[in-house]
Amino acid sequence: MSTTTTITQTNEVLTLSTLSTGIAARLASRSNRYTKSTSGLAPSYLQANLIILPSKYAADFRDLCARNPVPCPLIAESSVPGDFSILKSYLPSVSDCKIASSLDLRTDCPRFNVYQDSKLAKEGIPDIVSQWTSDHVAFLIGCSYSFESALVRAGFPPRHALLDRNVPMYRTNIPLNPAGAFIGGTYVVSMRPYKKKDIKAIRAITRRYLPTHGECVAWGWEAVEKLGIKNIDLPQWGDAPLTMDGRPLGEMLGDEENVPLFWGCGVTPQEAVMRAELEGVVMAHAPGHMLVLDCLEEEVLK
Amino acid sequence: MSTTTTITQTNEVLTLSTLSTGIAARLASRSNRYTKSTSGLAPSYLQANLIILPSKYAADFRDLCARNPVPCPLIAESSVPGDFSILKSYLPSVSDCKIASSLDLRTDCPRFNVYQDSKLAKEGIPDIVSQWTSDHVAFLIGCSYSFESALVRAGFPPRHALLDRNVPMYRTNIPLNPAGAFIGGTYVVSMRPYKKKDIKAIRAITRRYLPTHGECVAWGWEAVEKLGIKNIDLPQWGDAPLTMDGRPLGEMLGDEENVPLFWGCGVTPQEAVMRAELEGVVMAHAPGHMLVLDCLEEEVLK
Repeated sequence: MSTTTTITQTNEVLTLSTLSTGIAARLASRSNRYTKSTSGLAPSYLQANLIILPSKYAADFRDLCARNPVPCPLIAESSVPGDFSILKSYLPSVSDCKIASSLDLRTDCPRFNVYQDSKLAKEGIPDIVSQWTSDHVAFLIGCSYSFESALVRAGFPPRHALLDRNVPMYRTNIPLNPAGAFIGGTYVVSMRPYKKKDIKAIRAITRRYLPTHGECVAWGWEAVEKLGIKNIDLPQWGDAPLTMDGRPLGEMLGDEENVPLFWGCGVTPQEAVMRAELEGVVMAHAPGHMLVLDCLEEEVLK
Repeated sequence: MSTTTTITQTNEVLTLSTLSTGIAARLASRSNRYTKSTSGLAPSYLQANLIILPSKYAADFRDLCARNPVPCPLIAESSVPGDFSILKSYLPSVSDCKIASSLDLRTDCPRFNVYQDSKLAKEGIPDIVSQWTSDHVAFLIGCSYSFESALVRAGFPPRHALLDRNVPMYRTNIPLNPAGAFIGGTYVVSMRPYKKKDIKAIRAITRRYLPTHGECVAWGWEAVEKLGIKNIDLPQWGDAPLTMDGRPLGEMLGDEENVPLFWGCGVTPQEAVMRAELEGVVMAHAPGHMLVLDCLEEEVLK
């Protein structure tokens, strides 16, 4: 994707190249000068999905992540309940203080979602300052944007980035291993189309990024039905996928030049919250609108 | 289960109470004085599933375990390829030398299976001395027998143990997250029936044993069809499940006193081998016939 795409928002012109570090991306999100998808933002900086739960669900959620590391790779959490600025790292190679400096989890994603009693209550709001309480625990989950730089470097730029769109994300029928209160959840997946002949190479490139979903969970046109995806052109989150000349991907059914590949997706915890019966307020980033961190993608390689 | 059950084999009478430690169980297996299921053997000692692969598949298999920790919790592997006696521990609380002393992986399970080019070639043989090569890498996977003592202590003895049978194990349609050469695999599950009113307690007891499959992956009569199990009375491995008065469990369909609960099962890697297209010789324990270790179940609690 071009790094000079111009983004005009509020009273200031920002370019993607201006936001070239994690802290720059967070500060621009905090001041609402940047409110879009973070795909391609601050290249090589690790990005994270966010889910914020009442403390009584924290232990069950850690279990959910431990039992489902592909869609829910846990990379950090609040140092103590109520803390929105200091994190505890689960990345062996990244110390607590290197995750994100001068952090405010209540403001530092471009957009947020809020759930009340497991139902979506607010969508795409600019901050969650008024919803955050001293009882909330934040969890950071790895994000597949974090292997997109590696795909670009290997000559396989993701199509949604080339077309300046958000990655399409789908509900599937792959069951999550249940954990305590988290029952009935299923995988959410992100999708990037590639040529059939390149699938093996693409799988190998992303395999190394285990804390950011790792290799594909499924691939091929036959995987669409197998995953229970009813219409590839109607993703539940993100933008509809297109061919390079702008046609709906679904028109290419069976085409070997446009084959869908699916990865685990950090929206899965939000889906898990909606499938469970949780009491109280849960908060999260808006899908595609991530928290950009200070550590680098290369630091999370296993 | 009774600890005085008499087992008459070859030229010696062994009792389950004679084999009260890991080393006693291994030596009895090595000399073929003990050749049966290890359920209830050496209570409180950790038991393990075994899978032994050509070294070229070792990295992919580690990935398969990392991506599927519920059915494939990796607890140890050969210190170097070809080593059948010294292990490297993945259990944070158990050092390498505490896993199993005086070990010979080629003889120390009661029974073994052998696969050639991903197809079952030998079933239930007493040792794999002639198949083992300097290129083979052994992996130990946690076993659900290891939470059965905890279930007994809490007043929920597993029925198969009460009836002196092997636990029933089933193929399911739950997809494994693929990893390199390991494509197309699905979960194998073990099943223990309990009362509907006790499901929550049973889930909570086994939840702590994450390295030995943790809490249930599914439960309830409705789970049978959902998992793709065609006939509860025809498990793919182990013995058919019965009611306490000896009737087939399937006759109790819908009964709240006899509800099936399913856990991830360490036979999953053998199923994964059969679904993949691996070249060469793979070896494993015969389902139900585990390697009994020196470390204690309580040491693996998270």
